[in-house]
Amino acid sequence: MTDHPSRALAAFASQLRFDSIPPHVVERTVNLYVDWLGSALGGKGARPVETIARFARAARGAPEAQGACDVITDRTRTTAYFAAMTNGAASHFVEQDDVHNGSVLHPATVVFPVTLALAQALGASGQEFIAASVAGYEVGIRVGEFMGRSHYKIFHTTGTVGTIAAAAAAARMLKLTPEQTLDAFGSAGTQASGLWEFLRDAADSKQLHTAMAAANGLMAAQLAADGFRGAQRILEGAQGMAAGMSSDADPAKLVDRLGERWATVETSFKYHAACRHTHPAADALLSVIEAYRLDPDDIASVTAHVHQGAIDVLGSVVVPSTVHQAKFNMGTVLGLVAWRGYAGVNEFERDYSAGDIAAFRERVTMALDEEVDRAYPARWIGKVTVTTRDGRTLQGRVDEPKGDPGNTLSRDEIAAKFVRLAAFSGAASGEEAQRLLDAAWGIAEAQRVSTLFGEGASA
Amino acid sequence: MTDHPSRALAAFASQLRFDSIPPHVVERTVNLYVDWLGSALGGKGARPVETIARFARAARGAPEAQGACDVITDRTRTTAYFAAMTNGAASHFVEQDDVHNGSVLHPATVVFPVTLALAQALGASGQEFIAASVAGYEVGIRVGEFMGRSHYKIFHTTGTVGTIAAAAAAARMLKLTPEQTLDAFGSAGTQASGLWEFLRDAADSKQLHTAMAAANGLMAAQLAADGFRGAQRILEGAQGMAAGMSSDADPAKLVDRLGERWATVETSFKYHAACRHTHPAADALLSVIEAYRLDPDDIASVTAHVHQGAIDVLGSVVVPSTVHQAKFNMGTVLGLVAWRGYAGVNEFERDYSAGDIAAFRERVTMALDEEVDRAYPARWIGKVTVTTRDGRTLQGRVDEPKGDPGNTLSRDEIAAKFVRLAAFSGAASGEEAQRLLDAAWGIAEAQRVSTLFGEGASA
Repeated sequence: MTDHPSRALAAFASQLRFDSIPPHVVERTVNLYVDWLGSALGGKGARPVETIARFARAARGAPEAQGACDVITDRTRTTAYFAAMTNGAASHFVEQDDVHNGSVLHPATVVFPVTLALAQALGASGQEFIAASVAGYEVGIRVGEFMGRSHYKIFHTTGTVGTIAAAAAAARMLKLTPEQTLDAFGSAGTQASGLWEFLRDAADSKQLHTAMAAANGLMAAQLAADGFRGAQRILEGAQGMAAGMSSDADPAKLVDRLGERWATVETSFKYHAACRHTHPAADALLSVIEAYRLDPDDIASVTAHVHQGAIDVLGSVVVPSTVHQAKFNMGTVLGLVAWRGYAGVNEFERDYSAGDIAAFRERVTMALDEEVDRAYPARWIGKVTVTTRDGRTLQGRVDEPKGDPGNTLSRDEIAAKFVRLAAFSGAASGEEAQRLLDAAWGIAEAQRVSTLFGEGASA
Repeated sequence: MTDHPSRALAAFASQLRFDSIPPHVVERTVNLYVDWLGSALGGKGARPVETIARFARAARGAPEAQGACDVITDRTRTTAYFAAMTNGAASHFVEQDDVHNGSVLHPATVVFPVTLALAQALGASGQEFIAASVAGYEVGIRVGEFMGRSHYKIFHTTGTVGTIAAAAAAARMLKLTPEQTLDAFGSAGTQASGLWEFLRDAADSKQLHTAMAAANGLMAAQLAADGFRGAQRILEGAQGMAAGMSSDADPAKLVDRLGERWATVETSFKYHAACRHTHPAADALLSVIEAYRLDPDDIASVTAHVHQGAIDVLGSVVVPSTVHQAKFNMGTVLGLVAWRGYAGVNEFERDYSAGDIAAFRERVTMALDEEVDRAYPARWIGKVTVTTRDGRTLQGRVDEPKGDPGNTLSRDEIAAKFVRLAAFSGAASGEEAQRLLDAAWGIAEAQRVSTLFGEGASA
């Protein structure tokens, strides 16, 4: 155990070589990238995403100016800073981006906006892109684990810790030294922000959190490259992130088996298009419905047995008034699963307040479960108790929800989700989506990462 | 007492009319603006400031593009976003910008970068500029008081709360409705950040905090103008700023005598160019030296009797290794005061590590004082105990350090400080400084706030 974990973590990110990353980690990182790109396409047209995109254009204030970096939702190009900001906003909107269970961090939406933009700006190779992305995942996940459960009760970890993940990815992309990378951590950590308060008002802050985590992390690394100094112990210091925003931080987690444990492959894909805290119960309910061949109308009540974090995040919404809020409502998610078999983007868009779904919602309650809570956040166990109208009490359970590392999505499933998201938002036709997919699967082999669209597109 | 203090505060900021601001408050706001402009000029050439300016140019990525908003340090023009960012960085560097005692907030460096940039972008009148600036001060100060002493132990209030002050000023400048202003508070508060950890490494984060508080606050208001929703109780809500970053927050302070108590005029000017926590003791030491006609060599030791906040912020630096760190070192400040009679920018630059100053530094200690601590932060009492080489024990005391509201600077003193700062950094010649001063004193009467420099300059 080092006496300076921030420094050890910065050195790891700075020195991570593509050749030292095992092939299965590279392969999974490509899958995570493709999955992320689908989510970014899926954000096109969403009001908060388009508002941030308009802000970015106005802040730049240079209508004719071009750039090397794709804005995925509208296929314009801009600087790395504004591309990271806009793509960071876009890729978290449909609630389909990945999540790491133990850290409760959504790494893709803060890491790939940065690595893609910088790789395009620098004309870097696919191998560099992968190495930098893995650096972002490995750092971000460990910092999320370090900050602990107390942090997540008030703070949106993907906003706060995501800034460090983005900085680590950017630092590796810019080939910063370990010392510069530590400076970047300092400038990123002192900008770490993101509060859950917005949830109870269905406000738009979630997109702002991911946009600015990506942009601020990139800024921190660019400043460090230019000699800007940051705090050397921003994570574990006496007036650092944990001191200010956690009561159960454990510095040992920052350097947990660096280079041996690949946290990147522990990341889960999202199958349902809802807050991840609903997925275990959704899959458990599906298992009961399938096992007992229940009709949704047979179900009198469902109790979802959950961890405390689920209650903290989902508990504030009783009757959702927007699609986005519905994705944070256990009753709506279980209703969609029961009636439609799947809680995807189209199901939410069409039916979140449909009569049958709203009626089912009223029959769902959450209860804190000791076993589930103890296992969390390392494992997200799904448990439900279903009572039927004919008086039966049925138990459902899944130990790994669909998309979790032990129950991961296949490349076919990821591709299908990608095409579905592109079609949902209208960001790409079926043919365009297929072309984007073909290129995206080959990102690790690219000699030079360039624009995804049009003439200059990577093979 | 309202049951929704965030909303009451947003409504106040949104509806503040120039005509309802008493003349003495307008006059003091002009003084604060002039004092701020001097600090911004003083930041020219400082490495962290220039690094942020380079970042802003690269992030914009449009070398030919112009804008309506002055970058004060280099007289270029850009968009409101990047002007706020760069001027926010510049105006906090020389540690000469104002401070409000009760909130421990430096309002000028987060408010004026926003109001000046937006007034220039919109061609707004001087009266609108003053009203928006006062809105920023009144809101920011109350939010700082609300967050309490526990917040300031870990967080740099000017970074965190400064984001809300900047948002309030920007919202008023953009003529947002009360509802939109509340949205802006939500988007600002969820980006509130800034940790003291950087102090122990003499890192550059202080400039980043003020740059991004100004830029993020402006962003929050621009997003709100475009329909982006924010949390409705970002300050006092169960997962809001106080819940996450304070243990002694008092919501009543948010709405303390709105429109009756003018907190703006409670703001202190900085006389010495050091962290404000050193000023009471510096003035108390000066009073002893003057009263007993001491020679610095007569002094065997000095104990500065301080409040806990001073120990928290100043305690981490023992031997300063940079000018900036020296400004956070009680011994260095008292040494400069004793030997040079004043701890100004030139004294720090030339002598912070000079032999006599370093030797004096070793004779200074801080001690927590119950009376001083109890009075803080409403009053910043200065108390020192001096022991002399000939065996005397002498007490020094000031109840209001120079620059405090009851002991404020005259316009002549502000002008002299302005000219000194412009000359120190080379940002303006004596003649240019005088021209800038003449225009700045008349800002409240300007029909239209335009560039400060060159052809298009305001009268």
